[in-house]
Amino acid sequence: MKLLSYRSADRCSWGALVDDQIVDLAAVNPGWSTLARALGEAGTDGIRHAVAASGTAHRVAPGAAELLPVVPDPGKILCVGLNFEKHRIETGRERTQHPVIFTRFPDTFVGHGAPLVRPAESESFDFEGELALVIGRGGRRIAPENALDHIAGVTCLNDGSIRDFQSHTHQFTPGKNFPATGAMGPWMVTLDEIADLSDLELTTRLNGVEVQRAPLSDLTYSIPEIVAYCSSWTELRPGDVIATGTPGGIGARREPPLWMKPGDVCEVEVSGIGVLRNAITADA
Amino acid sequence: MKLLSYRSADRCSWGALVDDQIVDLAAVNPGWSTLARALGEAGTDGIRHAVAASGTAHRVAPGAAELLPVVPDPGKILCVGLNFEKHRIETGRERTQHPVIFTRFPDTFVGHGAPLVRPAESESFDFEGELALVIGRGGRRIAPENALDHIAGVTCLNDGSIRDFQSHTHQFTPGKNFPATGAMGPWMVTLDEIADLSDLELTTRLNGVEVQRAPLSDLTYSIPEIVAYCSSWTELRPGDVIATGTPGGIGARREPPLWMKPGDVCEVEVSGIGVLRNAITADA
Repeated sequence: MKLLSYRSADRCSWGALVDDQIVDLAAVNPGWSTLARALGEAGTDGIRHAVAASGTAHRVAPGAAELLPVVPDPGKILCVGLNFEKHRIETGRERTQHPVIFTRFPDTFVGHGAPLVRPAESESFDFEGELALVIGRGGRRIAPENALDHIAGVTCLNDGSIRDFQSHTHQFTPGKNFPATGAMGPWMVTLDEIADLSDLELTTRLNGVEVQRAPLSDLTYSIPEIVAYCSSWTELRPGDVIATGTPGGIGARREPPLWMKPGDVCEVEVSGIGVLRNAITADA
Repeated sequence: MKLLSYRSADRCSWGALVDDQIVDLAAVNPGWSTLARALGEAGTDGIRHAVAASGTAHRVAPGAAELLPVVPDPGKILCVGLNFEKHRIETGRERTQHPVIFTRFPDTFVGHGAPLVRPAESESFDFEGELALVIGRGGRRIAPENALDHIAGVTCLNDGSIRDFQSHTHQFTPGKNFPATGAMGPWMVTLDEIADLSDLELTTRLNGVEVQRAPLSDLTYSIPEIVAYCSSWTELRPGDVIATGTPGGIGARREPPLWMKPGDVCEVEVSGIGVLRNAITADA
């Protein structure tokens, strides 16, 4: 099942993609105002039943919908840094004994098809293709062997980064938090449709040219290890998002550096999940 | 004017402290469900008018109220690290050319009088007394000379930190984000009552013994510089909180280290603002 959030006729909603149409699930069940809320109240099984019971009612043509980030306003967005060995080596950083975790605010993300904004403050706007997890069942101190039970599904994510601000100090926060510099989508694919997350492959393209490619089996810290570690120090809740890290090939480590600039198009593809495509625009 | 958030008889509200009583401002104006919302809609001037017009209605005895963090659910909590020179030197870190910014999630904070929780995962639970700013008028790219126009008021904050998790990697996130390890309160004092923020003095006491003391004039990056820098890369919104940094004297840099443990009481006092007091409890 593919789940997404969208805006249509100035109303924000969310739904499931069925027969190339969106089933408006906030209309099907007005108590489920957002995807995060429905995940918390009913889980993906409950959502699936609601879709099946909806018949052909509450359908929206995708063309009438502007896609939002899969979860537009997660309580927590955790990002794993340096989680592919080739990327860690290209940044010249030491290997750490735990996952590197930083955070992004929800307003740093746009949905599939919306423009990524290169800020007026910088030209060093870099791509970072990633797989992101959407938490379904919340929890604290989740054991690695139970981690998959807490993941509702996965999506593509572009952890777009302003490199000069990222290295202003040892903390990444500023460079990872300019408005509309990241993207998430186009939809989340529920975990029941993915036989093995390690079999997925991640590809990033800038203007059609491949710039990153890696299998998810190359993650330094596996998805169960990431969920277990994060939940050892924070409570995960339905709709929270965890970006699992980017492979080697970032623009900052190329000679000369390869930055995203207005007019470019960046795509993040995860095999079997979808393609997240965003044009880059200049700050208004 | 002193503004605070509280829970009374299982209802969350917020109000102003007048004649040793709380004026329940969510009851005075049901459209203002939270302090952050009222700051956005009416500002501190509008809130002051509502308090004056409320007469003696909607009064709650402080004893009937459990204080919450001044803003219980800020959209953004930004924390400045290493912003007192003596603290930077005790940590052995190089001076940076920009403020060091990390983030905390709202669920890491409790209000005045509520217990701080030492997690089962660690004994290295450290205090960090700080002054925190509450944003009143939002904005992006705020010039330093206009920064004070965007601050509704200030409060005391304990940026309680789990040191071993903070140094798991180069990013501070895990050690700063255990649930209920920080505190904010007891109230916010609006800026019109503070002649000069630089004249304030910050003191932290553990079990009545002074462990940190510094004037706010010792901040490496001033409050206007912090607001200007943060707003250069993120949009500030009403109710957002910025913790301005802790002075020298933290427990981790003492010999032997001085950790907060169950049964201890930590106080953060800012002269003219108030005393934030929290007992430490063991993780349940």
